[in-house]
Amino acid sequence: MKVSIIGASGYTGVELIRYLSFHKDVEIFQLISRQFSGKKLSSVYPHFTKTPYEDLIFEEEVDLDSGDVYFLCLPHEPSVELVKKLADKGKKVIDLSAAYRIKNKDKYPEYYGFEHRYGELLEKAVYGLPEIFRSDIEKAGVVANPGCYPTATLLALYPVIKEDVIDTDTVVVNALSGISGAGRGMKQQFHYPEAHSNAYAYNPVKHRHIPEMEDIIKRVSGKEIKVRFTPHIIPVSRGMISTVIFETNLKREQLVELYRLEYRYEPFIRIASVPPQIKNVAGSNFCDIYVDLDERTGQAVIISAIDNLGKGASSQAVQNMNIMVGIPEDKYLKDISGSSILFP
Amino acid sequence: MKVSIIGASGYTGVELIRYLSFHKDVEIFQLISRQFSGKKLSSVYPHFTKTPYEDLIFEEEVDLDSGDVYFLCLPHEPSVELVKKLADKGKKVIDLSAAYRIKNKDKYPEYYGFEHRYGELLEKAVYGLPEIFRSDIEKAGVVANPGCYPTATLLALYPVIKEDVIDTDTVVVNALSGISGAGRGMKQQFHYPEAHSNAYAYNPVKHRHIPEMEDIIKRVSGKEIKVRFTPHIIPVSRGMISTVIFETNLKREQLVELYRLEYRYEPFIRIASVPPQIKNVAGSNFCDIYVDLDERTGQAVIISAIDNLGKGASSQAVQNMNIMVGIPEDKYLKDISGSSILFP
Amino acid sequence: MKVSIIGASGYTGVELIRYLSFHKDVEIFQLISRQFSGKKLSSVYPHFTKTPYEDLIFEEEVDLDSGDVYFLCLPHEPSVELVKKLADKGKKVIDLSAAYRIKNKDKYPEYYGFEHRYGELLEKAVYGLPEIFRSDIEKAGVVANPGCYPTATLLALYPVIKEDVIDTDTVVVNALSGISGAGRGMKQQFHYPEAHSNAYAYNPVKHRHIPEMEDIIKRVSGKEIKVRFTPHIIPVSRGMISTVIFETNLKREQLVELYRLEYRYEPFIRIASVPPQIKNVAGSNFCDIYVDLDERTGQAVIISAIDNLGKGASSQAVQNMNIMVGIPEDKYLKDISGSSILFP
Amino acid sequence: MKVSIIGASGYTGVELIRYLSFHKDVEIFQLISRQFSGKKLSSVYPHFTKTPYEDLIFEEEVDLDSGDVYFLCLPHEPSVELVKKLADKGKKVIDLSAAYRIKNKDKYPEYYGFEHRYGELLEKAVYGLPEIFRSDIEKAGVVANPGCYPTATLLALYPVIKEDVIDTDTVVVNALSGISGAGRGMKQQFHYPEAHSNAYAYNPVKHRHIPEMEDIIKRVSGKEIKVRFTPHIIPVSRGMISTVIFETNLKREQLVELYRLEYRYEPFIRIASVPPQIKNVAGSNFCDIYVDLDERTGQAVIISAIDNLGKGASSQAVQNMNIMVGIPEDKYLKDISGSSILFP
Repeated sequence: MKVSIIGASGYTGVELIRYLSFHKDVEIFQLISRQFSGKKLSSVYPHFTKTPYEDLIFEEEVDLDSGDVYFLCLPHEPSVELVKKLADKGKKVIDLSAAYRIKNKDKYPEYYGFEHRYGELLEKAVYGLPEIFRSDIEKAGVVANPGCYPTATLLALYPVIKEDVIDTDTVVVNALSGISGAGRGMKQQFHYPEAHSNAYAYNPVKHRHIPEMEDIIKRVSGKEIKVRFTPHIIPVSRGMISTVIFETNLKREQLVELYRLEYRYEPFIRIASVPPQIKNVAGSNFCDIYVDLDERTGQAVIISAIDNLGKGASSQAVQNMNIMVGIPEDKYLKDISGSSILFP
Repeated sequence: MKVSIIGASGYTGVELIRYLSFHKDVEIFQLISRQFSGKKLSSVYPHFTKTPYEDLIFEEEVDLDSGDVYFLCLPHEPSVELVKKLADKGKKVIDLSAAYRIKNKDKYPEYYGFEHRYGELLEKAVYGLPEIFRSDIEKAGVVANPGCYPTATLLALYPVIKEDVIDTDTVVVNALSGISGAGRGMKQQFHYPEAHSNAYAYNPVKHRHIPEMEDIIKRVSGKEIKVRFTPHIIPVSRGMISTVIFETNLKREQLVELYRLEYRYEPFIRIASVPPQIKNVAGSNFCDIYVDLDERTGQAVIISAIDNLGKGASSQAVQNMNIMVGIPEDKYLKDISGSSILFP
Repeated sequence: MKVSIIGASGYTGVELIRYLSFHKDVEIFQLISRQFSGKKLSSVYPHFTKTPYEDLIFEEEVDLDSGDVYFLCLPHEPSVELVKKLADKGKKVIDLSAAYRIKNKDKYPEYYGFEHRYGELLEKAVYGLPEIFRSDIEKAGVVANPGCYPTATLLALYPVIKEDVIDTDTVVVNALSGISGAGRGMKQQFHYPEAHSNAYAYNPVKHRHIPEMEDIIKRVSGKEIKVRFTPHIIPVSRGMISTVIFETNLKREQLVELYRLEYRYEPFIRIASVPPQIKNVAGSNFCDIYVDLDERTGQAVIISAIDNLGKGASSQAVQNMNIMVGIPEDKYLKDISGSSILFP
Repeated sequence: MKVSIIGASGYTGVELIRYLSFHKDVEIFQLISRQFSGKKLSSVYPHFTKTPYEDLIFEEEVDLDSGDVYFLCLPHEPSVELVKKLADKGKKVIDLSAAYRIKNKDKYPEYYGFEHRYGELLEKAVYGLPEIFRSDIEKAGVVANPGCYPTATLLALYPVIKEDVIDTDTVVVNALSGISGAGRGMKQQFHYPEAHSNAYAYNPVKHRHIPEMEDIIKRVSGKEIKVRFTPHIIPVSRGMISTVIFETNLKREQLVELYRLEYRYEPFIRIASVPPQIKNVAGSNFCDIYVDLDERTGQAVIISAIDNLGKGASSQAVQNMNIMVGIPEDKYLKDISGSSILFP
């Protein structure tokens, strides 16, 4: 299987290379990076020296014909066009941007600042969260790989929205994210002396991932449930915690059982007996979920942990690829725990 | 003014020494530490070498008579007795434990594991949050210095509970805390290789600071408002963020104005135009507060930041001392931004 | 091939499990840990949940008969006896302690505080640095896996001691180590609030790894060259830099060429064009080496980087195992870059 | 005393503001910053809100006439001219750049890339290391504030170069520096995800601070002693360790006594009984020094620790100011332990 990674030099791209380096059924036939075009992978990222991928060269032009599967790690707007081109050629596409995640294309001008011109393809693209849309992914040509916050949050919510046991029209979500979620581009607040030992909320009322979460909640539950979302930056390289609060009439035991049953055959979801820690999911495709109920307030508290670059991006993209091409879903993904350019 | 610090070798004790080292009206006449009894302060904490406090000696026995003000940095249960003894002698006492924070003494067995024997003194002790109880603190003999989570959260809530504009019976609080909040005692999860780059929620439904917060909310608002509280540990030494969510009928501008007015003369409360960062309050007595309203969900989001060892413990204790003895409240507290044994 | 890990719950043990989890030719048939005897691996280290090793149980008693290869991750003194027992049974043993590293058994009382009773076995044990002793390792029954500082330093020195081009009787070595090198045991200086943002030298004139380094230097060069060694702790979980200074008459180009030639076929040694970074070797078995000469002072500066838990301990142990049993040396070791309980 | 800070928005400038905020004899009458000209200090650095300096405004044009003391925190080349202008007006100048540090002006093209046009002023400028040049600083018009590596290293060497007890023509210096030493400008290697948990040597044979160190060594000892210098970056915001190795005929006790005597009246030098830690000097003007001798190799090992932004830059500049204007040298500098924008 010939695979292309477009936008290969950013964090999600480099993580994809790492995950694919374990994947025996895959050949990376092109790496696209405008910034490093013409350079060897190992000259930009020396940790690839003396590995099988040492001599891969970053290229500028995408070969639209030779590949079987294309991973796009591009900004949102350029992805719109390129996904369309590849879809028109019948290629399998896994897009890590938000370009094809939200069915309602009117959200794009408001949240992403551009008009989306391909409503039909948007309609056909499958949201790549296997635990919810597995059977659609199997048949998909274009998979929109979910955002990191939506992945963590929707996996924390799926059993209760599927069973319709949330008793309010709003869920409160507080999330913590590692700094790699903001990408490789430099910003003053991510300069080490100012980023270490610091933490803060950001985008406290309007974050791009809100319509993505609400859209899926509605598609699963049939109900309009709003997400009151506050993300926070914490001084870790990678990792994400999502703490989700809502009212329910279920008792604690019923709630825990609901999650155990729903996820019992899932290869990458683990129900934890204590609140999950970033260190247990970092560098992997796992999502750990803790389920509890505050009996004093009658509110459920569901806490999930993922690696924002793993289950929140690159390893989930590989999971989607496995499903799309008919390989066992967890193949070459289970025995990976580890890191990359970002670590330690 | 002669001052004693009892339990002086832990983090809050050492921070107190740091804050008092700037305070020209204070003489530390005794440092009590069982663990280091007989040792010089500068032999345990070498950063005091060649400073004015270099030769202070940790002692074992408390001199109950010679001091004007006593700071207690002890575990909760031993504080109960010692505060009583000092109060009986008419001393001014600032207790950094929870021993005298909660008026309802029935909460002690449930949340702290011991029976509280001094209901009368509990009734007379003043909760040491100056922004709410300043006039009581002026006359107090015993001040119960607030917990760090309650300080950050109650300062984020005070204007709206005072004006009674919360429209629900529950507020949702998610908080982030630095590891120093757990004290100097070693635990496996705080061993550097396992603590760095990690984060997680803990005590997700039952934390000791909940009755403390609900008690004050009720005393201010007259209403039973429950606090749905989830604390998280993040890999910073010190600093705390509290993100508070509730429903209100106020508009955004009204809400912001309410906070600006309430806190406009407060020396240590700063209304921030963006969500506050730990780095701006660490090592100081400031509390930075950001006020916003999510118009989609009709919910307010108030975010506060403090240093858990500063406004959340030791510098607030000094602020309380200033008020109790009639010194200008911010004296020698304003020009301190900085660190201690814990830093950098 | 049936493999046993004795002392499996410490950092080097857990890292071994991680490296072996990729190794298709290996079955871990027992994990020994007194501390966690009877517990499931995944209950102590939850990141193993839903992986193939989930159900392994820590045991207390070593089965001396059923295994093919035994990895010992024990304190030095207990290793002496257990290695002897296993060697007497003809088992292949890889000992990660210092118990069989130093040929001169008189060094043990001075540097390790015990008398070594098995001089004959000490003589036969092979020092497990494949780049120097590969052919001996192939035939070895007992391999003494090198210390982390000696690994980094001896790999930085091997070409010049082999070719005898050091012109002084002392080399100056300054090294930086991550905190995991001190193990999982808690100490006050490794409590997160005191360990983060801190750094310091330790054991500035007498470190246990000095006789180990000098012994190998003498065996390779035939000369008594002293190592003037200063290790430093830096606030990283894992990773090690060794900066080695000595006088030589070689020119810069000759020196660089010497290293390139010596290591050109080595699978895990990479000659770097700039000083090596911890992030490029962490979680792997690589050793990156930079070679330079300060023409003003006539002194060579060789800088090496390894992961103290990788090439400095556990992955080097797997490399040794591969050699001992006749598997290609880099099998299942090359495509691993990543982390473990310690990360991120 | 009216004081101006030119280049006030970088790390050394902001640290200067912090140190001067404690200095009761000083009024900051202008802050110069091209980048933030016209902005309030507290809008750029919110931690100054509600402090006495809240309303200071960054200006663009230097007022050369109104000040008594000028601190220059500029790049090297622009400093050359501005120091000259201020000196011609008879102002007291403390220059934190390297523009007037090296007496031999031929070093400037080689190490700094520009010709130095003011040899005469260069000759008159005083090197601002008070422990060596105190009496010159008292009379100086222009003080060249030392670099951070030279400060740490020269204080570690001063007693032995003064007494001429080094027996070789080369000293080996290995140093560790926090990232703030590279300034506030963003670089990819200082982007948090790539900087945290990483460490590496840099400029391993040619660093700009070498001629500065050798120049002072020669002026003190009269001898040409070369410095074989390897600096390393470690993942801390601030702090520096310098480990200095040389041969001597002194015994350990003599060596220790030499340091104790030389520095016994120094207010900011502390002889430590164990290798010094960054955490004990961070945020302060102290330099902690440990003295030892490796009897096996006959080499001394001297280890010093400073805060690169404190004794290595801004607080040393204040110490120099105090000396220049006749204030007690440690005034308002002793009770500061703490941090700033960079912390925690």
